[in-house]
Amino acid sequence: MDEWKLLECIRDRVPKAGDDCAVIPFGDTNLLITTDMLHRASDFPPGTTPYTIGWRSVAASLSDIAAMGGRPLAVVLAASAPSWEGVFDGVLSGAQDACEEVGTRLVGGDLDSSSELFLTSTALGEAARPVLRSGARPGDLLCLSGPLGRTAAALRLFELGRLKEANRLFRFTPRVKEGLKLSSLATSMIDISDGLAHSVHLLARASEVGFLVDPSRLPLLPELEEFLPKGEALEKALYFGEDYELLYTMPPELFRPELGIAIGEAVEGGVWLVQEGKREKLPDRGWAHGG
Amino acid sequence: MDEWKLLECIRDRVPKAGDDCAVIPFGDTNLLITTDMLHRASDFPPGTTPYTIGWRSVAASLSDIAAMGGRPLAVVLAASAPSWEGVFDGVLSGAQDACEEVGTRLVGGDLDSSSELFLTSTALGEAARPVLRSGARPGDLLCLSGPLGRTAAALRLFELGRLKEANRLFRFTPRVKEGLKLSSLATSMIDISDGLAHSVHLLARASEVGFLVDPSRLPLLPELEEFLPKGEALEKALYFGEDYELLYTMPPELFRPELGIAIGEAVEGGVWLVQEGKREKLPDRGWAHGG
Repeated sequence: MDEWKLLECIRDRVPKAGDDCAVIPFGDTNLLITTDMLHRASDFPPGTTPYTIGWRSVAASLSDIAAMGGRPLAVVLAASAPSWEGVFDGVLSGAQDACEEVGTRLVGGDLDSSSELFLTSTALGEAARPVLRSGARPGDLLCLSGPLGRTAAALRLFELGRLKEANRLFRFTPRVKEGLKLSSLATSMIDISDGLAHSVHLLARASEVGFLVDPSRLPLLPELEEFLPKGEALEKALYFGEDYELLYTMPPELFRPELGIAIGEAVEGGVWLVQEGKREKLPDRGWAHGG
Repeated sequence: MDEWKLLECIRDRVPKAGDDCAVIPFGDTNLLITTDMLHRASDFPPGTTPYTIGWRSVAASLSDIAAMGGRPLAVVLAASAPSWEGVFDGVLSGAQDACEEVGTRLVGGDLDSSSELFLTSTALGEAARPVLRSGARPGDLLCLSGPLGRTAAALRLFELGRLKEANRLFRFTPRVKEGLKLSSLATSMIDISDGLAHSVHLLARASEVGFLVDPSRLPLLPELEEFLPKGEALEKALYFGEDYELLYTMPPELFRPELGIAIGEAVEGGVWLVQEGKREKLPDRGWAHGG
């Protein structure tokens, strides 16, 4: 059973699990909660520093709060490692700094020991009007908060032994500020941690719309274009996941260039790449652990 | 570095990490959040069913909400396994049923694959007046919500192949109902997941008091006494952890037998076992992963 099939089973049985965070009505607002498990073998290549590991674990959860237009309230981090000697301080500092970067705090955690390094970060947030995946309407613009390919480029840099640059790229800033600004404008939103193509499909399914995506308008990270021929860079940008930009829709009359990059529009049905007047289907594939 | 030393480092650097949950002031109340990581090698002996694994993972976090006198609002569960085939349904059902048992819900999670089974459960709760570890006063009674030795007995039953009874004991009910009842009465509270002796010391340090504990009043689970000679059963009851009863203090005039079992009292200084007029120091040792 691959991860996506499992996620479908979960959605059937855990009705609140269809967005980046679960939404819990609380008084006159909503609490948001989201959890992410990362581990050495699949998430942290050799050369990733403890500081980057702590940062990225926490940032992955905060990205989910951002994707709902939420304000983060707190983060807790559970972590298990073969040994904490020489690792603990870096992981904790990275986690704390990632929280501070977006105005929140690490408030607690759990520590354990195990043969592989494991981290689970859980972020708590609040949103009076959370932005769901389900609000896109035909005619809305489809937009991105920033360039694609950050993780793909970082992994290449790790392979090349350019560890300082690789670690820097790996320590992304969760788009909390952008998400808050978009919370009163966007009709739907998601982060693209599962890859751009799959994320577009998720918005399409949740909103019961289709999308036209213009590949010539996809913003690529300069580092990605440094390593790869144009076609391959585009392939990574579309299908390689673990990027943490926001993908969102909004009525075109509300769009301003400082809000992001318009890459397409919502239509009645189907998810298409459109270039020079030609349409082709955008396949629903992307990043899936265990897939 | 052992777990307790690490926890001290964390307490120095994460000021909110000194209680069973972190407390986040929110409007006119407080949110509580707590996270627990469990994994196959150290927490689930052979014979533990997926249903019990899901139940116990979630119940461990809900016990922390109970220990602050909190009302649970939601649980999220992140889980990673070598294969989810034949495991997923059981884990999810167990987790959902443990939530329902105490009136809350599993609202989301994360799934991954890895060589070892890992689960991280995070519980969210609310308490207008959370009960901390730091409120005990000399003269208060020291009390327990229920008998000791549940996990020690379960582990023995797993060894004996009496899997049905072992699994049943492993699926404890978090003391949420009891914690809520105690929230307006207790001056300090903790769950005894780190063992009774260490938990008494934690209350003593946080409250800057001492305790007299009467070993003849310690309630032992009948299953524990079935397997072990009296002295050894007492040893387990004092120092073996992973039990999830509540340990709390309250003014003697508020105590009623239906609130629990009085096992001692708070005094000015020192933590002592007292029996037939003789005092001996209660060592500060207990359960520590990675210790």
